[in-house]
Amino acid sequence: MNKLQQLQSYLKANEYDAAFITTPDNVFYFSHFKSNPHERLLGVMVFKDAEPFLICPKMEAPDAKAAGWDGEIIGHLDTDNPWELLAQAVQSRGIQMTTVAIEKSHVTVERLEALQQIYPQATFVRLDDQINQYRVIKDEVEIAKLRKAASLADYAIEVGCKEIAEGKTEMEILTAIENAIKEKGCSMSFETMVLSGPKTASPHGTPGDRKIQKGDMILFDLGVIYDGYCSDITRTVAFGEPSEAQKEIYNAVRQANEGAIAAVKPGVRAMDLDKIARDTISNAGYGEYFTHRLGHGLGISVHEFPSVTGTNEMVLSPGMVFTIEPGIYKADVTGVRIEDDVVVTEDGVEVLTKFTKELVVLS
Amino acid sequence: MNKLQQLQSYLKANEYDAAFITTPDNVFYFSHFKSNPHERLLGVMVFKDAEPFLICPKMEAPDAKAAGWDGEIIGHLDTDNPWELLAQAVQSRGIQMTTVAIEKSHVTVERLEALQQIYPQATFVRLDDQINQYRVIKDEVEIAKLRKAASLADYAIEVGCKEIAEGKTEMEILTAIENAIKEKGCSMSFETMVLSGPKTASPHGTPGDRKIQKGDMILFDLGVIYDGYCSDITRTVAFGEPSEAQKEIYNAVRQANEGAIAAVKPGVRAMDLDKIARDTISNAGYGEYFTHRLGHGLGISVHEFPSVTGTNEMVLSPGMVFTIEPGIYKADVTGVRIEDDVVVTEDGVEVLTKFTKELVVLS
Repeated sequence: MNKLQQLQSYLKANEYDAAFITTPDNVFYFSHFKSNPHERLLGVMVFKDAEPFLICPKMEAPDAKAAGWDGEIIGHLDTDNPWELLAQAVQSRGIQMTTVAIEKSHVTVERLEALQQIYPQATFVRLDDQINQYRVIKDEVEIAKLRKAASLADYAIEVGCKEIAEGKTEMEILTAIENAIKEKGCSMSFETMVLSGPKTASPHGTPGDRKIQKGDMILFDLGVIYDGYCSDITRTVAFGEPSEAQKEIYNAVRQANEGAIAAVKPGVRAMDLDKIARDTISNAGYGEYFTHRLGHGLGISVHEFPSVTGTNEMVLSPGMVFTIEPGIYKADVTGVRIEDDVVVTEDGVEVLTKFTKELVVLS
Repeated sequence: MNKLQQLQSYLKANEYDAAFITTPDNVFYFSHFKSNPHERLLGVMVFKDAEPFLICPKMEAPDAKAAGWDGEIIGHLDTDNPWELLAQAVQSRGIQMTTVAIEKSHVTVERLEALQQIYPQATFVRLDDQINQYRVIKDEVEIAKLRKAASLADYAIEVGCKEIAEGKTEMEILTAIENAIKEKGCSMSFETMVLSGPKTASPHGTPGDRKIQKGDMILFDLGVIYDGYCSDITRTVAFGEPSEAQKEIYNAVRQANEGAIAAVKPGVRAMDLDKIARDTISNAGYGEYFTHRLGHGLGISVHEFPSVTGTNEMVLSPGMVFTIEPGIYKADVTGVRIEDDVVVTEDGVEVLTKFTKELVVLS
């Protein structure tokens, strides 16, 4: 049963007339068509028992077809009212829209009001969790792509380490990394982060023209998209011999990362992993400096379901893929984050990112 | 009166208790804090008559302060319920939330439901158009930034033209352009497009490893962010002598671009500009190949209000900034698009992008 049929079965079982999918990553999941439509309407309408259709800007219709969508395509011009075209396509199938499932975490209030205007009697129910249930379990084809994306991320870190030299700026190193990935025909999954010295202490800092100096710690946070699937890795390395205080922080983060990864297997809860990492860091005396969740799901999106937090009771199952990324951010010493991508297997864990977690000291 | 005070006056005049602003670009507009919070809650709550606050991930609170936000900051951890913190901050001000303005084109149904749960009696009204009214008129400081962003875009096209050579791939040329901009300490405002040969005929094509050949037309579409403000330029150049058919298309697009620009002045409607360009292209016999609107607003966002379409009756006023970008996409000949960024002045137009519109023939 393919992904569309799976969704149709769900609609039948719940007696929902249709599901309207508009999140670009979910549109890709169901149609193989990846597009960023900005403010224009892009969506897949799936019915309980009628042919689905894809609605997109008219100029993208050929791309959607080329990507593998072989159902009907409703192309709209900027001067069209896309909602009218949508209503016509629904009506031509003779469908009564009584209950319609939408992605409430993505659909805007404006778009909901547009749908309510066409279907004033309809109830709009939440589809997000159901799609998350599908997407959270990756099949072998998806895991193979994620494996490849992770190995490209390892390579990017390698390039970054080779580029480090006294007087180079963060942006210069960042550029070398991104060029190396472009030469492989791939693009980054989010804005690459290269932070040096005191800037490592900002978990969401911005790379700039700070020049690398001997004695800096350098934090790389980056990811690569391979065939629509994302990786996400962080490594923190030293340029010149680190201080004892820096090594202590590094070791606490590494222990937290490795302890949490060792605990990954079916049956464990996401929150258990967060607790293992957080306890390790707290016991080392740095609890207040680990200011974010342990990790996040990874796949078509670089941040997707599930969130690995101290409160998520979700039980792990084989095929789930997420990051494990504890960090300590102590402004007067250094920031350190170590992030890996992991897959839950039948009996444990596969770590996709393989760059060493020994403290790399460059000279 | 600063931007926040202006909004407060609007709330008072309409007897709205508060405005909750969550679009990252609008948060930047009102707070100077630019951040992409992904799925986390980021927002500015502005009251009719109480101190505003900013709510953001706790780890970003120092960045928000550094960016210039000097009001209260509510930082939330991933384990917090940010809506509870928001409700407390409102309650501590003793505010009754009866009517709350939100950005309906951005706020998701899920977030509206979260707000409705806290304030079940409240009415949520649309704020989008009001913010568009503010943002659509750029002040001198903003126009100076846009001018600079446009001159960087001109420079990027120059770099692209210099890089063109037989056998180089689209991605190699793209990389050289982006590196040149990074060296200036800036980043691109969207994914740079370098399309060659038949690929120019796809208005939203993806650059790849196609090698440039003599006889290709090459289309660049790119933009640069300067101090938070975006440019957006398109030029189409020839590598080797173009055919008569290609020149004819180029000239029709250029005429459409220049005709529309010449008509820009206060009092003209957006749709009039679209019509001038569309008529020019139709009269040249290519009407069916101009498949998109004439342009879009430009500022903090690379696509913002107003949309320059055949149906937008908005009357132009001094300080409005938008693109003029007619195109013809004829698969068996070539695609051509020529895009400029323009400001409506007191008595006419200032064109920010200055790269030549003569057909550049590289050899």
